[in-house]
Amino acid sequence: MTELAESPALPRLDDEARAALFTNARTANTWADIPVSDEELRSIWELAKWAPTSANTQPLRVLYVRPGEGRDRLVKHMSDGNKAKTESAPAVAVLAYDTDFHEHIPTVFPMRPEMKDRFDGDANAELRTSHSKLNSTLQAGYFILAVRAHGLAAGPMTGFDAAGVDAEFFPDGRFKSFMVINIGHPGESAWFPRLPRLAPEDVITWA
Amino acid sequence: MTELAESPALPRLDDEARAALFTNARTANTWADIPVSDEELRSIWELAKWAPTSANTQPLRVLYVRPGEGRDRLVKHMSDGNKAKTESAPAVAVLAYDTDFHEHIPTVFPMRPEMKDRFDGDANAELRTSHSKLNSTLQAGYFILAVRAHGLAAGPMTGFDAAGVDAEFFPDGRFKSFMVINIGHPGESAWFPRLPRLAPEDVITWA
Repeated sequence: MTELAESPALPRLDDEARAALFTNARTANTWADIPVSDEELRSIWELAKWAPTSANTQPLRVLYVRPGEGRDRLVKHMSDGNKAKTESAPAVAVLAYDTDFHEHIPTVFPMRPEMKDRFDGDANAELRTSHSKLNSTLQAGYFILAVRAHGLAAGPMTGFDAAGVDAEFFPDGRFKSFMVINIGHPGESAWFPRLPRLAPEDVITWA
Repeated sequence: MTELAESPALPRLDDEARAALFTNARTANTWADIPVSDEELRSIWELAKWAPTSANTQPLRVLYVRPGEGRDRLVKHMSDGNKAKTESAPAVAVLAYDTDFHEHIPTVFPMRPEMKDRFDGDANAELRTSHSKLNSTLQAGYFILAVRAHGLAAGPMTGFDAAGVDAEFFPDGRFKSFMVINIGHPGESAWFPRLPRLAPEDVITWA
């Protein structure tokens, strides 16, 4: 059993940390009147960035929207049921995928810079989109938990006019929005009773 | 400032917990000869399941593959560069999206069971697929961090023949695989030097 001695023991998350990220954390629908600082928003990304993506490509892009003119421009593209939440959120993140993420491959995958060529050109546009969507959505999962790691509540939404948001904030067409996340401290009656999760037998199979 | 008093203070993750999930955690490429129990695998899902999805739809499905015949059936569909890693992994999770996730809507979104109808039928197959892919990939991000929360290393991969895996394990066509994750305790030289992350100015914009 020499392998055991050679294997570094990895730390586990205690119940308190599990509660903060998973078991007690909730999607917030109302917000306290407490600002979220630019430093907090930068720090969320600095934490989320370390979790893995295919070939380290990191295609997620983040537009942080603060109260004021920027938030007004965003709110008009939200679904009616989401307008009030975003209108009152102290900070909002628009998550987008970069359709030209491969331009960064020589930087992020320096041992094989030529991998960039596999994604280049119109012939590979579909491959770029599927790679970028999958990996940026994976990063969205990390991002939501990184918000929670900062003692903040997240309110992720897919109910918005993505084409409208893109025309408003990403007019050159390179970034495509796919999720909007309200960020802040929870307000009064911030959440509904918790909804049921599927039973294990509906999710897990074994081989 | 009565709002401050009314807002529940949310816990933050300390540096040790951040290290376990994000800053120190690494994708493992070799595995120690230490088994991963079915209880650990069940517990990973029991943690990951609490993080949010659109309208609580939870479309992720997990096939856990253990050493032996099941793993042999999986390895043959992995890309050549991934075969050795999966061949030696103490446990493997095949992540798939459920193309008929909407069948569960009356259970998981009981206040609006009729939302199921919006996804029903051939006319909505494309909507079902895009909803299911986005939300199951988001859940894959939660899942990877839930593996790490258990003191285990994850080795997520997209390099495999998804059609082959689906024919092998999901022959009725309802579940579509999109990621394979090796799970275990790291072995010798389990990881390469850490690759660079993008600079904030390449990722973050402000409005």
